[in-house]
Amino acid sequence: MSEYRPFDSGASMIPSSEPFTPINQVGEFGLIDRLRSVLGDDAADSLVQGIGDDAAVYRVGGGQVHVITTDAMVEGVHFDRTFVPMRYIGWKAIATNVSDIVAMNAIPHYATVALALPNNVSVEQLESLYGGMAEACSHYGLNIVGGDVTAATKLTLSITVVGEAREEDIVYRKGAQPGDLLCVTGDLGASAAGLEVLLAGKKGFEAGGDGAETSQPNLIEFAYAVERHLYPQARLDRMKTWAEAGVKLSALIDLSDGLGGDIQHLCKASGTGAVIEAGLLPIHMQTFKAAELYEKDPLSMALFGGEDYELLFAISKADKEKLDENTYAVVGQVVDASEGITLRDPDGNVTPLETSGFQHF
Amino acid sequence: MSEYRPFDSGASMIPSSEPFTPINQVGEFGLIDRLRSVLGDDAADSLVQGIGDDAAVYRVGGGQVHVITTDAMVEGVHFDRTFVPMRYIGWKAIATNVSDIVAMNAIPHYATVALALPNNVSVEQLESLYGGMAEACSHYGLNIVGGDVTAATKLTLSITVVGEAREEDIVYRKGAQPGDLLCVTGDLGASAAGLEVLLAGKKGFEAGGDGAETSQPNLIEFAYAVERHLYPQARLDRMKTWAEAGVKLSALIDLSDGLGGDIQHLCKASGTGAVIEAGLLPIHMQTFKAAELYEKDPLSMALFGGEDYELLFAISKADKEKLDENTYAVVGQVVDASEGITLRDPDGNVTPLETSGFQHF
Repeated sequence: MSEYRPFDSGASMIPSSEPFTPINQVGEFGLIDRLRSVLGDDAADSLVQGIGDDAAVYRVGGGQVHVITTDAMVEGVHFDRTFVPMRYIGWKAIATNVSDIVAMNAIPHYATVALALPNNVSVEQLESLYGGMAEACSHYGLNIVGGDVTAATKLTLSITVVGEAREEDIVYRKGAQPGDLLCVTGDLGASAAGLEVLLAGKKGFEAGGDGAETSQPNLIEFAYAVERHLYPQARLDRMKTWAEAGVKLSALIDLSDGLGGDIQHLCKASGTGAVIEAGLLPIHMQTFKAAELYEKDPLSMALFGGEDYELLFAISKADKEKLDENTYAVVGQVVDASEGITLRDPDGNVTPLETSGFQHF
Repeated sequence: MSEYRPFDSGASMIPSSEPFTPINQVGEFGLIDRLRSVLGDDAADSLVQGIGDDAAVYRVGGGQVHVITTDAMVEGVHFDRTFVPMRYIGWKAIATNVSDIVAMNAIPHYATVALALPNNVSVEQLESLYGGMAEACSHYGLNIVGGDVTAATKLTLSITVVGEAREEDIVYRKGAQPGDLLCVTGDLGASAAGLEVLLAGKKGFEAGGDGAETSQPNLIEFAYAVERHLYPQARLDRMKTWAEAGVKLSALIDLSDGLGGDIQHLCKASGTGAVIEAGLLPIHMQTFKAAELYEKDPLSMALFGGEDYELLFAISKADKEKLDENTYAVVGQVVDASEGITLRDPDGNVTPLETSGFQHF
């Protein structure tokens, strides 16, 4: 039957002499580059943006585009069921995908959920998980329209979200111009601080005792930071406010890896450099307190802690005037690519900003 | 900050007194029903079909709809890397999702891939995996436009595919009418037969020896069945042929769980019963041979083996005349719901067709 086309002679078999390059040798982003090149680039005409931004963009007619993003959350990698309630895991899975849609300046509409689960999860726990997803969907205005449930050894949630926008309104990672201001929403590092607090709490709990002789922290004291970790907010609110004010951003990315990592993506896509002003980074008081308690550097938390799900954007000085000053903070400036990506401390000392954002490998 | 809304007092926490219903007590489809009810049904106006068919359907304007489906493949559940080359895993991951798009009578356009992977996978193996996905994408005319790569303990591939159609052309699971003929494409059970052969081969390999004193099968003898398992074909070809012939199917589903399971879904959605004629089921010679060798019932393989990725459809007797008789086989008839879903053997004995399709729990 001619329609069955076996692969070329043994090309698919992996002989033992095949080179074995460990993934950590090329890193997460190196791996993505190699896999992209396998896929090639014979894209459909309707495809505006493929792999390489927060979401892909394709035309659906009438000047409208859809954007699509997918993200997986794996137990033991992204969350720990021993101290994170299922409801929060569900919320976060949706919110972090919505954040990628927001980072294209689009509105989320539909989601699908592929759930792989071990048999030590109960129906009631899954109802809590889906309750958190339903709450996030209601909050951000999207519907879960499809899914898949399968067995696995670790709970894994793979979410895909589709959003919509006018093609002319999409904001990419590319587009930043030297002279643009670099800005962020919210504050940075609090999610990482909250995670430290939760991990210390778990350790204290496992060690037993009433908390007096253990390192079990006072969760109330760190409520904001813990909530930032468990219950991240996609910045749809900001994008809607700015759209109403007629603001046009030059470039945009969401802060999932940490500012120090995500600025690299934005600059690489835009073909620019950047100067980040360490003294301008918005850092919450609880982040400083957690850093002190757990002997971490608050600046490193803000730059490399990750999972802030705030927005990093570039904007021209002229357009900046349209922004309500309570909705963002200036953290630096876009410069020529030849100047690299640097961090300037309050004393004016400039050092290269190393890529130390979270990588999975 | 009022925009942070903590969940209601402790509602998200799971006290130890929480009921614990194991998933296997409600089953895969029972679980899906319960999770659907958590999500509620306040759907967007543009949503035509949510959870409950092979893919969801939403309007994109101009009379067009998009359809979206997601499926996860988990190592140790859906595939075994010890005897399935990566390239085939990649092909199958795309082809099985395309099959769900085809089962709505839509054309696949875009895919996203969320990849969770352990550190015992090499970059070269992932390139093979993506090579198989690229080959399938090229064959079915779609593009991989986005993805996510994360660490995990088991290789997990979660694929989402978006397709397009005119709204009036979509064919649902619902829509079968008593009196319609039930038909399938291709043959049934060969994928399950191929899996038996591969598993026997693995066992023989592990036992060592040259195959003379082990049960290691002759793969050439079962090449068709093995290929059906490793290298399934989504029936886009059939749907295109029938569209050109102006055929309108009443109801349609792809055969992933096995005819015996998938007929239940089609009948439930349509509110009908069905009679399947055991003597009419198309079963390949290699399936019979594998069944004999491994002491299985070939009829059970055809009904419940699963992973055929052929199409099961209902069609009126009038429309059937437009079908090229080489493209399908009649396997039964749609009857009134009160008659249930039954299997009739060549002697005319009728028995209820039990739901024994593959369930994950």
